[in-house]
Amino acid sequence: MRDYRRAKLIFSDQLPEPGRFGPNALLLFDRVLNARVEGFSEWAAAFPASYELPAGEGLKDLHAFPAHLEKILQLTQEFAPRETTLVVAGGGSVGDFGGFVASILKRGVKLVQIPSTWLAAIDSSHGGKNALNVGGIKNQVGTFHFPSEIHLTRSLLAAQDSERARDAFGELAKIAVIDGKSWWKQVTASKEKDGQLLWKWLKHAIAAKYRIVARDPWEEKELRKLLNLGHTFGHALEAFQGLSHGAAVAQGMLFSMEWSRKRKILKEPAYRRVHAFLTGTFQFTPLQRSKEFKKIPETDFLRLIRNDKKRNARSEITEAFIQDFGKTILVSVSPDELAEEAKAQGWVGEGK
Amino acid sequence: MRDYRRAKLIFSDQLPEPGRFGPNALLLFDRVLNARVEGFSEWAAAFPASYELPAGEGLKDLHAFPAHLEKILQLTQEFAPRETTLVVAGGGSVGDFGGFVASILKRGVKLVQIPSTWLAAIDSSHGGKNALNVGGIKNQVGTFHFPSEIHLTRSLLAAQDSERARDAFGELAKIAVIDGKSWWKQVTASKEKDGQLLWKWLKHAIAAKYRIVARDPWEEKELRKLLNLGHTFGHALEAFQGLSHGAAVAQGMLFSMEWSRKRKILKEPAYRRVHAFLTGTFQFTPLQRSKEFKKIPETDFLRLIRNDKKRNARSEITEAFIQDFGKTILVSVSPDELAEEAKAQGWVGEGK
Repeated sequence: MRDYRRAKLIFSDQLPEPGRFGPNALLLFDRVLNARVEGFSEWAAAFPASYELPAGEGLKDLHAFPAHLEKILQLTQEFAPRETTLVVAGGGSVGDFGGFVASILKRGVKLVQIPSTWLAAIDSSHGGKNALNVGGIKNQVGTFHFPSEIHLTRSLLAAQDSERARDAFGELAKIAVIDGKSWWKQVTASKEKDGQLLWKWLKHAIAAKYRIVARDPWEEKELRKLLNLGHTFGHALEAFQGLSHGAAVAQGMLFSMEWSRKRKILKEPAYRRVHAFLTGTFQFTPLQRSKEFKKIPETDFLRLIRNDKKRNARSEITEAFIQDFGKTILVSVSPDELAEEAKAQGWVGEGK
Repeated sequence: MRDYRRAKLIFSDQLPEPGRFGPNALLLFDRVLNARVEGFSEWAAAFPASYELPAGEGLKDLHAFPAHLEKILQLTQEFAPRETTLVVAGGGSVGDFGGFVASILKRGVKLVQIPSTWLAAIDSSHGGKNALNVGGIKNQVGTFHFPSEIHLTRSLLAAQDSERARDAFGELAKIAVIDGKSWWKQVTASKEKDGQLLWKWLKHAIAAKYRIVARDPWEEKELRKLLNLGHTFGHALEAFQGLSHGAAVAQGMLFSMEWSRKRKILKEPAYRRVHAFLTGTFQFTPLQRSKEFKKIPETDFLRLIRNDKKRNARSEITEAFIQDFGKTILVSVSPDELAEEAKAQGWVGEGK
């Protein structure tokens, strides 16, 4: 259980049979799925026990955790601890919450993830990381706990608005750029749109993520930081502009691309390839060029950058830069250098 | 960090230099040590950050956890996450709390244990297990997180009442019986008493525990259950009679010895050897033979046995029985069989 084992990935059109998880399975799920997905309530009711959750950052607040856990323990008290399985159906916050619960319940029980959002399906349900927030600061506590199975279910994912699919393009573009294997060219040539496009390339995107995770499952080396491409800047946009995570990562990719070019890490014609991929294939448009865009004051931006992962003033950021498809490098930068670049690109304004 | 690595054991007369743990060390400690141990406050103040805790089961209540964690995060916010070390000075509850915090803070930081009680020094600070209580039920959540160093400090341990030393005799006797290597004979011949006796044999007792832990660090096999010798029954006494953990384990050893004899697992003359060790060397006296002893009603006893580890009515208990020094075997028994034996030995009465 403590070793890193790559999860078994199960692609299917339909939700898995509840019976497959045995008599000691508890389903934790995002309650919006009751209304969004036809037949979901009946499916959930077929589990030995189930518990519905309100998705969102509030769920990840450590102060809300003890009350939830008490209910989860009541639901599982008749289960054999060694055979207990937590099946978690939801997006990023539900997956984080459920993964953390599974890692500490009776010192660790079996975990199955059923991502219900494209973002979770392509990114957050993989890699074994989970986290809760403390005192309003994100991801301060958590564990590594690798799911034994991850179910990628087309009907569940397709039940989202198509806007949510476009949200996940940022992560799809990111992993395609990092991976660099030839499938990115086929993505460019794809005729599918939105969810159809994501479903088609989901297997490739996940496989690419595992190629990196498997080399550093516990984040003991810096290697997994490659997966943060576009994220430091993206998190600041997410917090200040209220962008969704996926949309913020798309903007972060554009930011990283331009910064990589300026630092002469990303040279022409690789720049033209990456540019065409991000702005052509995925149609990411730089948000700061729109008329409505309001620049982030520099002091706020620096505060956000430092609060991300709770950096202190001294600490350097290990930032991923793009050299080409399949060639991403890690460079140590200071928060001030990041702020300077954000000013130069028109994201951040002077003063307070 | 995720592998099982045996902790480095450091035996010393004095507390370790705070500087040894570097500039990113937080000391968590039992606040009674300020008054009990000369110079302790000054020692604690020499750490980059420190946080005092009220020891006891209240500290292990999950509902108290978020408020503590928020303060701990404030104290460590300027620390580099990868270099953060939690140094935990206290007994069982503080060690459990601190071990759990270290395992989830920033997804796991370095842990150093400095047990301040004989029970923690001989048993609970070793083996990497930690736990919190939920809804009044013990040890419902927790992790495995192995300390990198454990400091066994004579002056700290000697600052306890000598009664606390006798409390730890139950665990010393238990591990000596399980281990069976020749040091148990030397314990018998020792002239030392109380804390002096424990200090003399601490290294042997700990080494014996690690011989078992190393064979099954994550409790994936049944093997670590050997260490529960006398504990199922002991926990019921602890809960119902208000005995200390150590005193309850001593009684549990007597109970297991008699049960092992009755089942013909422990034959004469091995019985005479074990009997002489427990009642002669350690002077354990069967509590149920004293005039003041009030029998536990059978229904209460069964409820306690089932609540221990939250067993359900159906579940079997893997109970350790004594065959001889160095020969302990695991046998599956039912809660009813355990209750029958407790009645036969005069611990448990009929009815409610």
